[in-house]
Amino acid sequence: MSQVRVGIINVTGYAGVELARLLYRHPEVKLISVTGRSAAGQRLAEVFPHLAEIDITITPELDEVDVAFSAMPHKASAEVILPLAERGIKVVDISADFRLKDASKYPEWYDFAHPAPDLLQKAVYGLPEFHRSEIAKASLVANPGCYPTGALLALAPAVKKGLVHPDIIVDAKSGVSGAGRTLSLSTHYTEAVDNVRAYSLHGHRHLPEIIQELETLNPSFSFSVTFLPHLMPTSRGILSSCYARLNDGKLANEKVRELYRDYYKGEPFVRVVDSPPETKQTWGSNLCLIYPTVDHRTGRLIAISCLDNLVKGAAGQAIQNMNIMFSFPETAGLEALPIYP
Amino acid sequence: MSQVRVGIINVTGYAGVELARLLYRHPEVKLISVTGRSAAGQRLAEVFPHLAEIDITITPELDEVDVAFSAMPHKASAEVILPLAERGIKVVDISADFRLKDASKYPEWYDFAHPAPDLLQKAVYGLPEFHRSEIAKASLVANPGCYPTGALLALAPAVKKGLVHPDIIVDAKSGVSGAGRTLSLSTHYTEAVDNVRAYSLHGHRHLPEIIQELETLNPSFSFSVTFLPHLMPTSRGILSSCYARLNDGKLANEKVRELYRDYYKGEPFVRVVDSPPETKQTWGSNLCLIYPTVDHRTGRLIAISCLDNLVKGAAGQAIQNMNIMFSFPETAGLEALPIYP
Amino acid sequence: MSQVRVGIINVTGYAGVELARLLYRHPEVKLISVTGRSAAGQRLAEVFPHLAEIDITITPELDEVDVAFSAMPHKASAEVILPLAERGIKVVDISADFRLKDASKYPEWYDFAHPAPDLLQKAVYGLPEFHRSEIAKASLVANPGCYPTGALLALAPAVKKGLVHPDIIVDAKSGVSGAGRTLSLSTHYTEAVDNVRAYSLHGHRHLPEIIQELETLNPSFSFSVTFLPHLMPTSRGILSSCYARLNDGKLANEKVRELYRDYYKGEPFVRVVDSPPETKQTWGSNLCLIYPTVDHRTGRLIAISCLDNLVKGAAGQAIQNMNIMFSFPETAGLEALPIYP
Amino acid sequence: MSQVRVGIINVTGYAGVELARLLYRHPEVKLISVTGRSAAGQRLAEVFPHLAEIDITITPELDEVDVAFSAMPHKASAEVILPLAERGIKVVDISADFRLKDASKYPEWYDFAHPAPDLLQKAVYGLPEFHRSEIAKASLVANPGCYPTGALLALAPAVKKGLVHPDIIVDAKSGVSGAGRTLSLSTHYTEAVDNVRAYSLHGHRHLPEIIQELETLNPSFSFSVTFLPHLMPTSRGILSSCYARLNDGKLANEKVRELYRDYYKGEPFVRVVDSPPETKQTWGSNLCLIYPTVDHRTGRLIAISCLDNLVKGAAGQAIQNMNIMFSFPETAGLEALPIYP
Repeated sequence: MSQVRVGIINVTGYAGVELARLLYRHPEVKLISVTGRSAAGQRLAEVFPHLAEIDITITPELDEVDVAFSAMPHKASAEVILPLAERGIKVVDISADFRLKDASKYPEWYDFAHPAPDLLQKAVYGLPEFHRSEIAKASLVANPGCYPTGALLALAPAVKKGLVHPDIIVDAKSGVSGAGRTLSLSTHYTEAVDNVRAYSLHGHRHLPEIIQELETLNPSFSFSVTFLPHLMPTSRGILSSCYARLNDGKLANEKVRELYRDYYKGEPFVRVVDSPPETKQTWGSNLCLIYPTVDHRTGRLIAISCLDNLVKGAAGQAIQNMNIMFSFPETAGLEALPIYP
Repeated sequence: MSQVRVGIINVTGYAGVELARLLYRHPEVKLISVTGRSAAGQRLAEVFPHLAEIDITITPELDEVDVAFSAMPHKASAEVILPLAERGIKVVDISADFRLKDASKYPEWYDFAHPAPDLLQKAVYGLPEFHRSEIAKASLVANPGCYPTGALLALAPAVKKGLVHPDIIVDAKSGVSGAGRTLSLSTHYTEAVDNVRAYSLHGHRHLPEIIQELETLNPSFSFSVTFLPHLMPTSRGILSSCYARLNDGKLANEKVRELYRDYYKGEPFVRVVDSPPETKQTWGSNLCLIYPTVDHRTGRLIAISCLDNLVKGAAGQAIQNMNIMFSFPETAGLEALPIYP
Repeated sequence: MSQVRVGIINVTGYAGVELARLLYRHPEVKLISVTGRSAAGQRLAEVFPHLAEIDITITPELDEVDVAFSAMPHKASAEVILPLAERGIKVVDISADFRLKDASKYPEWYDFAHPAPDLLQKAVYGLPEFHRSEIAKASLVANPGCYPTGALLALAPAVKKGLVHPDIIVDAKSGVSGAGRTLSLSTHYTEAVDNVRAYSLHGHRHLPEIIQELETLNPSFSFSVTFLPHLMPTSRGILSSCYARLNDGKLANEKVRELYRDYYKGEPFVRVVDSPPETKQTWGSNLCLIYPTVDHRTGRLIAISCLDNLVKGAAGQAIQNMNIMFSFPETAGLEALPIYP
Repeated sequence: MSQVRVGIINVTGYAGVELARLLYRHPEVKLISVTGRSAAGQRLAEVFPHLAEIDITITPELDEVDVAFSAMPHKASAEVILPLAERGIKVVDISADFRLKDASKYPEWYDFAHPAPDLLQKAVYGLPEFHRSEIAKASLVANPGCYPTGALLALAPAVKKGLVHPDIIVDAKSGVSGAGRTLSLSTHYTEAVDNVRAYSLHGHRHLPEIIQELETLNPSFSFSVTFLPHLMPTSRGILSSCYARLNDGKLANEKVRELYRDYYKGEPFVRVVDSPPETKQTWGSNLCLIYPTVDHRTGRLIAISCLDNLVKGAAGQAIQNMNIMFSFPETAGLEALPIYP
């Protein structure tokens, strides 16, 4: 049987290049096309020497593929996806362009009017742990943001089961690769190293996505979420510390952990752990580690999650989505263990 | 006039060595004695080559001094301080041994019964922005913990003026030097680099100190505080992100900033800033940068502070306390600007 | 056909744990036994949470295996290997105990008399690019040191073909994981971060190994080698800068590169590159990148190599050796591309 | 007596901002003017929050000053300095524009014809340890490059006394701040972190400067120098490892250290140390630490130096030069001890 042909649109960002790394070793697919504007005409290995083994040239346009991953920036992504969708090509979109069900949020959060509200309705939010069966049937999957993936997986069991008040704080710490490969002063080495800062204090774009999915999980609540992202000096990794008041402030730690384990039973990439996880324990892998615990002094749930923002937070999850869409084993191409230290 | 003679007990930890660095250049004092158990007999420069200029030998016991800084671990610190206090020598204690007014907290949080409850009552909690006039008259000052310094300064104006509910979350991120110079696997380079983790999820020792001082600030409340520290890969720096519900969720950002500015007017080391601060902006200095803002979507105050945990969080604040105790200019020896980048 | 049973002696160091990571996914073998003294009785996942997927308990003694990897420290390694060798079990030794053909070097460089000079003669130095056919027939392979691997691969073509004087400088820069998982002040995070230092200025233990293999390559010379290692703040990676005077100082860069390419033709893990390589381009992979160039002003060859000290410099190369010993495809279990960034 | 008025041309690079930090606390001068093209009109504190205490606005042109520091890029620096020199204003030039005595080197190394060969002859190479008395009389001082400062100080005693062959290798490792504040992919955080690479393999611009000064030190030789710089992941620091064959390969280590100590006797910022130095031991200070040793196996001198590239390698040395030019105490404004860890 012939392998599924895959392509990457905009391979030159960190999500794109991570897709290339992972897809090249994927047993069920063949990476046949990668695009990139400024680097068009160059061999992939010239731009990314670590991928020297992949013998492919960056082109301005995508070749004929069975499935495309778009790693374009928002707005531009929708533009390249529309014609693909019309031709019936399956797409996983790493950008935010098909994540928010309510098209009216786009002008507010992303400064553009959504060009295809109908298609938006057909797209599926690609968090497999929430929407696996819909993803299986979808033609267009909106891959979640890196922060929402961490926050939602940390909160889901508690929210779904109504254990907590809908008043939630997500304090997230991300490595610098989350800011992408585009140069900026705040991601200049000497500025970012030995440094920690909060940013987007007046509302990060990942907030509406978090709220949308929390409300889908538990429609009986209206959620009040404060989401504050921080930049920390590592290249990869997001640790999300989530806080919410418990209805039962005396809930035992073992109980909450058991409940989380039960919720994620059978999930190949979510692991509820017995001690506080570290971002480095997920380096290069598609894992999300979750540690829920109760602050009995205050009656609050503290749920911590760790993941690699370029894998479970981007390229790896996109491949997991493709695996589901094509009925491949869900872990295909994603079996590598984390690299530590 | 002769200079005040100062000594450092246990110079071989990071707080101790930072005291040595700063005191050596202090215009009003002379560093005449430094102690250290394992390193006794060695010259300070052998243990710390960056201090080669300081011509002093580490001794097992303190020489005759006018003021002593104790950088001993808790419990051991009280033991060395008691005889000094009896002899009327002024002391600034970097350890936690004289911070908690309620002696009964020591068995619970520090695993020992306090050996001198009377002296504990006379000691002053050395956060100059809270207790300057008492410090001026004190013989024994309990230098605050690094985390409490950041959290309390970030929260004080809002708490004092009753702007927020007494239900507070402090999510703090600290550099690794906060864990000291004692070896441990979690502070081994290859384990700590590229990594972020939360720790002390079931109660960090700095929590009772934070609550005690919040209740001193505003005795009309009983505070429910969740304090979660994180280890991040920098050597210095603490960023504290504090969250609390505002009584008036529509309070303007300018208003809250103005109120904070007003509160800290004249403070030499607290700076209320107009944009989110970064830990690196305080590197090597005694500054605490504070940025209060309102999350209007949820009606929450977000107050962020940054400081250098070895300076304003330890040695620098200790010297600031000494300056107040001896009526030196409060900034003496602490004028250096932060080093950036 | 049943899989080959493998065991790791002393899994708790960085080489050991990296072996576990790689062997677990190796298609031809089954990891059935891992030992460790202090951690005996614990599950591997307790000590190394990133390996949670590997369901194995650390034992004090090795179970029955077909091939064993020893990641013991020197001297102790020989002691555990002797009985295995007697029983005919194949062994790859990560330690230095079987690397130096001249047994008399052990007292000088490693402070012990070699316990089995006969076995030492039968052991093969496991640099596949030098000794592939002997490795294929060997029962005991001495896996090269991380530094020698980088230095020898960078120098081999020039030395073998007699292009350079036998007067060589190797200035090597290693990440901190090379110093292992044992705690020490110089590998304490706050001491090692933001820092670079040279060490072993009076002779590093990897020097005799480098000289031995250079002389094996080209016995017509007696080599004078200055080898200076440096510690740099990364967890993984060694960059070796090698300098030697060329007989023909006008040799064209293209020519020397061509000659290197020719020399390493067909090598699965050595890549002669067209621009200066970076350690990060090998992160997590078994690659060694080499860039030879001529300093025409002085007539010197500069040959630079990069590798991941825990993979090609330790565990990966050990597996490559096992693959050769068992006639597996040489790249089995080592196909993963480097992780970047 | 009124303070000397100083100005900084192009304050917005790392050398410029470090000058501002140090000059602000200098007891003999007053920083009255700072220029910067893109940031003109902004307050210094807006661009550099750590300098919030300095109340000064960035202007497009320099005000009337007694001494100017130019931190402009090469070529542009000469252009702004020429009119200042004509008006008799003393200048310390951080750029390379007045370092090379042979004007014909500029087209070769810096791609421009020198605009003022006469002035070039009057300029003094500002390495105080080499040219103190000429600096004292100079109107224009060419501040040395960061790499040449480290290499020359490490080599000077041996070269001056003719101990070594004039065939030298300098393998230098620099932190990323040496590459400046201008954005580039190789200094993007995620590319530079966890990474080491060599660069400028076909000749770095600091090479002619190194050779010029070695030949000035010992005109009886013609030097053959291979200089290879490496980028390492720290913000500050240069460690230079210098190698040269000794005439007497049996020279005792104590002897060579004594000879170095003797050579640098009385130098306020050069310290010959007894154990290998670390870059971090100079963080934020104007020190250069030097460790000479003999590789008795090969008869080579290994001389290692460490400095902070932004202080002794740029701004600090520039101030040291100004101090000499104005007969201030040479250490004025440069007394701060290194910050560690």
